[in-house]
Parts: sequence; C-alpha cells; structure tokens
Amino acid sequence: MDRNVMKIDESGAVDGWIRWVRLSPPSLQDNTADADRLKNQLKKQLNTGNVEIDLSVLRELPFRLRDWGYAARCVVVKEGDADLWHLIGVSNPLENQRIVGVAVDLGTSRVVIRLVELSTGEILFDASFDNPQLGVGPDVLTRIHACDQPGGLEKLNRMIVDALNRQIRDACNSCGLDTGDVYFVALAGNTSMTHLFMGLSPRWLIREPYIPVVNSPDVQKADAYGLQINPAGRVFILPNIGSYFGGDLIAGILHSGINRQADPAILVDVGTNAEVVLGNDSWLVACAGAAGPALEGGVAQIGMMAGPGVIDRLRIDPETRVFQVHTIDEMLPIGICGSGMIDLAANLFLSGMIDLRGRFVPEMCGRKLVMRSRIAYLEIVSADESGTGQPLVISQADMDSLIRSKAAMYTILETITESVGIALTDLKAFHVAGTFGAFIDPVSAVSIGMLPDLPPKTFRSLGNTSLEGATQVLTSCESMTAIEGIREKITYLELNVNQTFMNRFSAAKFLPHTDRSRFPSVKTRP
Amino acid sequence: MDRNVMKIDESGAVDGWIRWVRLSPPSLQDNTADADRLKNQLKKQLNTGNVEIDLSVLRELPFRLRDWGYAARCVVVKEGDADLWHLIGVSNPLENQRIVGVAVDLGTSRVVIRLVELSTGEILFDASFDNPQLGVGPDVLTRIHACDQPGGLEKLNRMIVDALNRQIRDACNSCGLDTGDVYFVALAGNTSMTHLFMGLSPRWLIREPYIPVVNSPDVQKADAYGLQINPAGRVFILPNIGSYFGGDLIAGILHSGINRQADPAILVDVGTNAEVVLGNDSWLVACAGAAGPALEGGVAQIGMMAGPGVIDRLRIDPETRVFQVHTIDEMLPIGICGSGMIDLAANLFLSGMIDLRGRFVPEMCGRKLVMRSRIAYLEIVSADESGTGQPLVISQADMDSLIRSKAAMYTILETITESVGIALTDLKAFHVAGTFGAFIDPVSAVSIGMLPDLPPKTFRSLGNTSLEGATQVLTSCESMTAIEGIREKITYLELNVNQTFMNRFSAAKFLPHTDRSRFPSVKTRP
Repeated sequence: MDRNVMKIDESGAVDGWIRWVRLSPPSLQDNTADADRLKNQLKKQLNTGNVEIDLSVLRELPFRLRDWGYAARCVVVKEGDADLWHLIGVSNPLENQRIVGVAVDLGTSRVVIRLVELSTGEILFDASFDNPQLGVGPDVLTRIHACDQPGGLEKLNRMIVDALNRQIRDACNSCGLDTGDVYFVALAGNTSMTHLFMGLSPRWLIREPYIPVVNSPDVQKADAYGLQINPAGRVFILPNIGSYFGGDLIAGILHSGINRQADPAILVDVGTNAEVVLGNDSWLVACAGAAGPALEGGVAQIGMMAGPGVIDRLRIDPETRVFQVHTIDEMLPIGICGSGMIDLAANLFLSGMIDLRGRFVPEMCGRKLVMRSRIAYLEIVSADESGTGQPLVISQADMDSLIRSKAAMYTILETITESVGIALTDLKAFHVAGTFGAFIDPVSAVSIGMLPDLPPKTFRSLGNTSLEGATQVLTSCESMTAIEGIREKITYLELNVNQTFMNRFSAAKFLPHTDRSRFPSVKTRP
Repeated sequence: MDRNVMKIDESGAVDGWIRWVRLSPPSLQDNTADADRLKNQLKKQLNTGNVEIDLSVLRELPFRLRDWGYAARCVVVKEGDADLWHLIGVSNPLENQRIVGVAVDLGTSRVVIRLVELSTGEILFDASFDNPQLGVGPDVLTRIHACDQPGGLEKLNRMIVDALNRQIRDACNSCGLDTGDVYFVALAGNTSMTHLFMGLSPRWLIREPYIPVVNSPDVQKADAYGLQINPAGRVFILPNIGSYFGGDLIAGILHSGINRQADPAILVDVGTNAEVVLGNDSWLVACAGAAGPALEGGVAQIGMMAGPGVIDRLRIDPETRVFQVHTIDEMLPIGICGSGMIDLAANLFLSGMIDLRGRFVPEMCGRKLVMRSRIAYLEIVSADESGTGQPLVISQADMDSLIRSKAAMYTILETITESVGIALTDLKAFHVAGTFGAFIDPVSAVSIGMLPDLPPKTFRSLGNTSLEGATQVLTSCESMTAIEGIREKITYLELNVNQTFMNRFSAAKFLPHTDRSRFPSVKTRP
C-alpha cells in the first residue's frame, strides 16, 4: 500500500486531522475563556492565524476540558485554501475512541467507500456497490437529461445520498462503530457525478460552452448534503478542472505523485474516456479523448467488465498456436475483458494470426476461423470448454474496433507529449489507473502499439486512484494544499481532431505502428 | 443619528455587506465554472483571497446568473478576523428586494431589536420587550444558578431564542417583510446574557477564577442558534473581554468612537455596575465596579426605573426652596429615577438643604422634613400632588446611599485615570451611555461631585450604545475589524479595594469632594 500514513507525536509535528492538545489551566492571573485558550494553543500547533469552534463542540467544551484536566484530542479540519481551521470534535485524550473518515470513489457505475481511522490511517473497511442512478440511466448523458424533468435532479441526488448513508451506516455497523464516529468524508468522482451528489444542476456541463456550476467546492458540513455522519462532520469534494476533467483525476494525480517528481511522468486512466495527465513538479498537462469502450471490453460481442469467469489473461503458443486462457476466479470462461482483449490482439499478432493491419490471416488461424452469415469469426474458446455452452468468438469488426481504440490511445499519448516538446521515450514513469490498469499486461499493450515501447518496469499499475487519492485527503492535511497546487498548475489541452491528429491516428492503426522503429522490443515471427 | 451609513457605488468602494457584481459571461475561451467565476470577481471587489459560497446559494446560482445576465446583488459576510468571506445570498440587481439585518441589544431586563435595511443603512423598525428570563429571576445571578438545575440552561436558552424569533417575525410583519429577508443578526449583551443566548453554560462566570466559555464567539449560521431568519443567515455576537465585561460595552466603545481619537476620552455606562472605559486610538483601559443601584434609582423607597410619571428632572429654587418636578410624559409623579435623584441631591446641596456630608439641614428643610418611626424623611411631592395619593419622600438612608454611589463612581473615575497617569481634567470627551446617560444633567452630576468638573459640552449622552454598536456592525464591514482592534487593545483593570481606593472613596463621600479645588464651577450659597 503506497499511501501516506499519518505520523503522530505530541510535539505537534503531525500531518493529520487529529491533534492532541494540553492547556495550562485557568487562574485569576490567566482568566482567558476556555474556547479562546484552546484556540490559542491550536493556532500554535497548526501554525495558523484562525481557528473556529463548531457550536456543538463549544457547548460541551467547558465540561470536557475540566473533566479531562485541560487536555483533549481534537478533530480539526481546514477550510479549503483559506488560513482557517475548524475544531469539529473533541474526545478524551486518555481513551482510544475511534475517529473515522470515509473515502468515497463515486463512479458512474460503481461506488466504493472506505472507512479509515483518522488517528492512525488504518483502513477499517472497504465496500463497493452499484451506483443506484444506474436505474435512471447507465451513462452520464441519460442522467443529465433526466435532471431536466421536474424533480429529476432532486431524485438523482437523493438516490446517491441515500445509498451513501445506507452504506456508511452498514460499514460502521460492521466495524462496531456509530455513524457519529465519522467526522470526515472525502469524495472523488467525475464532474457530473459530484454535481449530482451536491444537488447542482449538471445541465450546462454538456451544453456549449460546457460550464460546471463549481470547480472547487468549498468544504461543507455533512448535513448540508444530507449525509448522516457526526453533526459537525465535514465533506471535502475533490475539485474538477472542467466539465470533462473531474475530481477523480485530481485524486489520481495526487495518488500517483507525478506532481512531486522532477522527471516527467504520465498517468493514464481508461474508462469511458481515456484521460491522460503528463507532468512533473513544475507543470501538468491533461487531456481526455474517446479511446475507452473497446479497451474496457465494452464493444466486442463477448466483451464484458472484469468479473468471475471473464478472461483477463491469454497466451498463444507462437509455435503450436494453442490458446491458454485465464479467467477471474478460474471459473469456466463466459467473456473477455479489456486486458484479455489486449493480450489476445498481442498474441494473435506475435503468432502471425493477424497481420499488421489486424486482419485475420486464414492460413495461420486454420480451423479457428469460422464464417457465420458471411462474417469471419475467430474462436477463442470452444463450446465444450466455455461457461456459456456456446463458443466464445470475436469478429473481424471487434478486432478493428480494438485497433481503432489502441490507435486513439497512442495518438493521444503522442499528442500530449508532443505538445510540451518531449518524446514518449523520455518518460521515466508511466502510471496506469483503474481496473484496466490493474489487469493489463504492459508487454501486450506495447506489442500492439497501444502504449509506447518503454522498459516494462516503467509501467506501474495504481489501482483505484480515485479512492486512494480520497483516502490520502483523510490522513494528510498537506494533501489539501497539494490538491490546490495541482489545480493551479494544470493546463487542460483541448484535443483538436485536425489533420495532424488524423495523420497520427492513421499511422497508429498499424500493429504496432507504421513507424516500426518506435517499437524495437516488439519481435514478430520472421 | 451619529452612525456610519453605508456608502454604495458600483466601483466596489463600499463598506457594507451588500455588493453588486457584474461578470463577463462564459465562453469556450473562458469556461470557468459559474461559482469560481463569481468568486474571482468577489475576491477582487472584497480584496480578499478567499470567498466561499453557501450550498443553498450555489444550487440556485447557475439559474440566477443566466436569468440576470451574469450580474447579481450579493449578500456577503466576513468570517471574524480570518481572510475569508461567505456569499450567503444573491438577488436580482435590477430589483429592490429588501435585504435586512437585525441589531439586538440583549439586556438583562429589556431587549431591544432594530430592523435595518442592509443596502442603505435605513432603520426600518425598533421594538423592545422584557427579557422573558425575568420570569426565572430578575438578576443575572439567579439565572446562572437556575442553569445548575437539570434542563435549566436549555430552558433559559429557549426563552430568549423563542422571544427573539417571535419579535423578529412580528417586526418583519410590521414592515411587510418575510423573516427570509433577514440575513444578518448582530447581538450585543453582557457576558451572561450572550452565554445564555448561545446555550453556553454560565456556571464558571461567577466562580473563581471567573472563566467564560468563550470571549470571541465565531460568526455562526443563525440556525445553529435556532434563530429563524434566512437559512443562510449569520449571527455576529459582539465579543466580551471577560465574565464582567461584555459585548455590550464593546458595542459602546465602537459607537462612542473613543478608539479612533487621539485625545483620551472616557465612556461610562451605569447599570447594575458602573462600567468605565478610558482610552484613545492607541490604548484602552476598562474597569467595572459597584456604583449603580442608587444611581439607577434602585435603592430609594420611591426610586424606580425611568417610565411614565417618574420624576426625571427636578429643580429647587435656591431662594424660595420651592420644588419644581418634571415627570416623564408629564403625568402625576409616582417615583423618581436616577437622573431625578442626582438633580435632587444637587439642588438640595446648592440650596443648603443638605450639608457637605449629605445630611438634611433641618433649619433649611423646614416643614418638608418629617419624622416617621424616628426616621427623618424629606417630602419631595405632597400627597395631593402625587400620582399615588401618598407623599413621595426620601429618607436620610436613601440620601446616604446615593452619596456612596456617587463617591464610588468618582473613585472609579479617579482610579482609572490615575492608572494611566492622566488627570480627570485632561479628558477631552466624556461619554455617558444608556438610559441613565440620556436623562442625567451633567451640571447636577458635577455639582454633587459624581462626575469631574469638566465644561458641560465635554459630556455627551450616547443613548443605547449597545444597540447602536450592533447597528454599526450591520452596516459596516470595517466595524468587525474595529471590534477586533478594540479587543486586542483593551486592558482590563481589576479594581483592588485597597487602602488607596478606600482613602479616595472616603474623600469622595463629601459634596462635591473633600478637595473643593477640584470642583471650581460648583458654587454653593455662601
């Protein structure tokens, strides 16, 4: 686990939202009010000019301070980039009452929540569930249009807020916690999903000139959003850069750390769109483009999201051309996901079963190539070895679609590096986010020319960067400053589909590329 | 009316909580989010680094900005002394929708509320009512003890919050306003009253070492206190310096302006205690002492608070010794208030009817002096001229009590000026606050040696400074900075009742003073 875990000591040299304070008790010589006394100490420890205290905490404060001998464990939160901190909870410094935060990856399809102990950074619980808005529409566009109906936005908003409340409550129950122990929610999602969560109209996100209601949401009280956690609890939503570049990507940058390295590195997140960030500790460029569906396995007839029985890895013996498939949970195969498709294309190419334009080569495919209604299909798994009772096949059209996707991806990578005058081979680190990144074999992706020909160790799979970035916010105050830094540094590159782009795209539609010299490591059969 | 009235123009050179903004509309070239666009403009106009937007405002914002052509009238509020502003309301810049604030003088006995139009500073409505906590106890101490009962604090808190809600609603109705038009409440009161309003335990205010829960309350949302105004409305409570020096006095200093003048000036507020502030634009000293009851008319048998039929002014012809009384509303006299008592003492002294120790002089009082149960009484109003059917009389004990009070007042004034090494005669301005200040005749007060012998024009009656100070907060953002400046500058002088104090007190128990040279203007009959 590559995550900042909070360092704690009593000297105040900590970076988390939990702070221990010890005050000198009041006397006739020093009769400062309780709240002002605590604020003065917190100001010192937090190195800030301003601390405010929530009324619910203030009302308990004089009793608690006297009970605890003028010491307390304090839950604090910073007000965005203003020099203002809020004290939102106090607990007995001698007891280990749990103080918890929830990280949320608010995906269009799946939502992941994670309970984190704020004092230690310990992960207590992970859970994921379908975004209930799927019932309104599977994609963002349908949901945005649904908001134009009377009560539509309120309905979609309630769906996700209610689901989060339910899931947070269940997660707390599983850990023997009360929702009142939750003081902080950090939430990352794309711009549309965070707008729906906040109850903000997404109407203008999809209409020229594509204007979000807000890019940098303020830290709000949880009850403003209807979240049922501690009444003083706060919600931090990772900011977006625009309608098509969301807080999930900012979380990804934060987690990847590309913004902290001197060497330029790249972060790629493949979902419905391919989102790419390139940069280092002094600049960041981002862009997004349509490259995803085929890579996610969403286009091929047998393509599906990763899940039990789905082919995620595949090998073809270049000599015997025997297929070896691996499925998730090692069940009988029922379909193929993006990483499986990439392995398939790479192995077909390396064994000569497809040519450099991705066309099936009949003499190499042999009996695996079958015609149905005049369309050529390649059998990947025979009927008697498949989990569906039917053979698993891909068509020439499926393969063409994959090749267009890989070409689009490479073209985006070429365009973004070109835009800042560096070569793809200059990259010292190449981060791949998401489920896609978790399963993909970089060697296969390089073989088909989807990713640049870099040493395999250059590629790094980061997992759910949206969740990890949100988790980082829960355990590090510095992360807020870092996020603000990312926001200020980043330039969004509009991908103009002009002649240069189309030329690059055409050149990339070959396996691995028209310019073979770019992929020296890819060795096909002579 | 000596109050800062807000200056407004479209250049941004304003000092109120209402700001007009005009934005450039979004385009493909400038696709900043609505909220961020508005924030950037407000940051410029407010000269601040941080603006936050309440969620309720944010949800309406994209619709409103488009309806209004990217212009808006904004209601903003500053977060204490942090460089952070909140946008809490927007309204159509072309309509004159009223945006209102409520100033509250939260007195132990009487509460005064005032509705103020925030755009213009116009006073729309004043109302006053008895503090409903009088039902629990007339004085602060009884109420504080009542809080030790289970549910006691909650009961006292609900009493005042409910009464304020009722009165604000009625006041709004009277002006054709809705409580939703109220965005700001500024409240001044003594430390105990503000603690009860905030729902904070006053328990430790009266127990050594006399610690308030809070001196500088943060700006809170009205609903945190249970106040029913606009849901985004804010409450600003004027800070106290300690248990015995409340926000009402800070309001007084703000209104008097002594903190903005180079010449040292003094502010005196006589209530249950005499509270005194001395200072100028670089320093402030404050103290409080028991001097009040007799001066408020609270001790004499016929003493009462100012009201219809109460003697507020009195003259005795030095030749004929005929009494001329003036009553409030010119009704038949039923009692005498503080200013009447001071006039009485001064005139009795100047006409020789009391001696320099305040003793009745029988040969001068003549038939007005009567004995009842061996006690000497002086008849002020005969039975047939009185509104009660009984003669209005004061006893020697009443007069002694008044003299102790005036001596205490003078001693406090002498002590506080002495503490900073200036003479009472150095004072260029002498402000008297409150009802007491509104009625008192400075010449009479000087005649008995209660106030120093300064030219009459030096004395200035300020009226309800607590209400006026709170009103100033409603119309001037600068006032918040000024209040913070007052808080930081002020030194609280503990009045040690030591030998020096007692010596001064004894010397001040003569009329006008043992040291006659201090009162050259006071001419008694030879």
